[in-house]
Amino acid sequence: MTETSINGVFSPVVTPFRKDLSPDTERWIKHCKWLLANNVGLAVFGTNSEANSLSADEKLEMLDRIVAAGVDPKRMMPGTGCCALTDTVRLTSHAVKKGCAGVLMLPPFYYKNVSDEGLYRSFSEVIERVGDARLRIYLYHIPPVAQVGITPALVERLLKNYPGIVAGMKDSSGDWDNTKTMLDRFAGSGFGVFAGSESFLLATLRHGGKGCISATANVNPSAIHQLFANWRSPDADRMQADLTALRAVFQKYFVISALKATVANYGNDPEWGRVRPPLVELTKEQQDALAAELKARGFAMAGLRG
Amino acid sequence: MTETSINGVFSPVVTPFRKDLSPDTERWIKHCKWLLANNVGLAVFGTNSEANSLSADEKLEMLDRIVAAGVDPKRMMPGTGCCALTDTVRLTSHAVKKGCAGVLMLPPFYYKNVSDEGLYRSFSEVIERVGDARLRIYLYHIPPVAQVGITPALVERLLKNYPGIVAGMKDSSGDWDNTKTMLDRFAGSGFGVFAGSESFLLATLRHGGKGCISATANVNPSAIHQLFANWRSPDADRMQADLTALRAVFQKYFVISALKATVANYGNDPEWGRVRPPLVELTKEQQDALAAELKARGFAMAGLRG
Repeated sequence: MTETSINGVFSPVVTPFRKDLSPDTERWIKHCKWLLANNVGLAVFGTNSEANSLSADEKLEMLDRIVAAGVDPKRMMPGTGCCALTDTVRLTSHAVKKGCAGVLMLPPFYYKNVSDEGLYRSFSEVIERVGDARLRIYLYHIPPVAQVGITPALVERLLKNYPGIVAGMKDSSGDWDNTKTMLDRFAGSGFGVFAGSESFLLATLRHGGKGCISATANVNPSAIHQLFANWRSPDADRMQADLTALRAVFQKYFVISALKATVANYGNDPEWGRVRPPLVELTKEQQDALAAELKARGFAMAGLRG
Repeated sequence: MTETSINGVFSPVVTPFRKDLSPDTERWIKHCKWLLANNVGLAVFGTNSEANSLSADEKLEMLDRIVAAGVDPKRMMPGTGCCALTDTVRLTSHAVKKGCAGVLMLPPFYYKNVSDEGLYRSFSEVIERVGDARLRIYLYHIPPVAQVGITPALVERLLKNYPGIVAGMKDSSGDWDNTKTMLDRFAGSGFGVFAGSESFLLATLRHGGKGCISATANVNPSAIHQLFANWRSPDADRMQADLTALRAVFQKYFVISALKATVANYGNDPEWGRVRPPLVELTKEQQDALAAELKARGFAMAGLRG
């Protein structure tokens, strides 16, 4: 089995939109570079990227542009799982060809009550069609949104048949017991488990996990990375408590809109607040309340305006 | 307001796949023609068409081919609602340009707990971008699968701002109270409500609805159409009971797989049984049990092998 070396803190990078709702690639690349400068990797095209509101063509073009702009694909783990097998294959192939470190793959999520057999066939078919030994798949378990989840039995079968290719998972169940089950069963063999939020970062690292992929890493990258880098320090529990408390501030709102409002606010760039339907921006009242609470906490995003 | 004349029984046409899982357009067009010969219209690219397992490119090509094959677009109501705004606009525009009678539009279904405001913006943005007075949208309410639903308040707002364009809905909630609410509130002004199954066909017609769009119309088109054509006859309740009983036979299984197994069986064409992941075919035991029960009921699909 090929060991994967991907670890650390990743951000499902929020996607800025122009007034016509097209992806604002320049602002996006700038934000990606700021995240990298803060030691956070790029899980572009995640849930919090509004990636499922983008067409495959739009995502392919964005990927081409960011690599052309000199961003290191080895720091990227783009989301490539779509409803349609053919879209997933196309995006995944492209990510591998561009040299991305891995891909984060949702199961096909429209049809409900599908079997593990059906999901196995779906992932297997993607792997066979991509047909590239460089492929590293991180399974994306996010039942609160996708509704369709990844069971331990499915992970086991995929690992048995595609060791190395099936390289890890992101657990966004919000259920530590589930993350712990995955860690206990699979982390020992090199399967890379990432928590879906920094609230579980310390626990995940203590149980052999690789890090976290978290929405709030879009706005709080340095502090989250600090915990990753110092999780064995005596101060780790306090750092974890601080991260969890800050995350709770954003969770009072629709998180994607709150993250974008915060980038807009701290970057002094109102364009950033825009979302693509079916999402809506925070109201002015919500923006003000969020900004006031962050200010009261002394929250900062150093270098964002640079 | 432009009155819509679309009514009757429609089928979300099942999509046959070749061994390589590509859409088998020839078999598909043949089945569409059989349905039309049995007085059932073509709601191609519906849930039961595995349409959400097809890319936008695949659907565009299929639509081009079926129109080129001489199938009347005025008998077609393709599904065009995707997660991504840009995909929905592209498919909807194409359907309008091809002369389709209407489109059946899912709300964007990945993000959960979205607001009516967000869904309104989504539908509104599609309508504005398509920008064609011929557009007729049928809103697709199927909360058991999409999870994201269409509320009466959303229908009201859309109807107010886009009368005529927002032409009706398909209610696949499986909840007659919801269908009745939609009929009572909107059918009087010409809004075309279709039941999502023939189990509610008679009740829907008695309350001013337009017909039904039903999975089982793929295999039982004539009998369902007979009820539509004779719903005022003294025999209507018995006809409804027969339809409901037959539908229950298919509902013992994953319905899409059961429909395809039945087309394969009655058409003597095993290729038809294939599904695209994440779905799986019926097992041999399930196929045999389904076939036996249909045979015991004297079920037939006249002209299917023709």
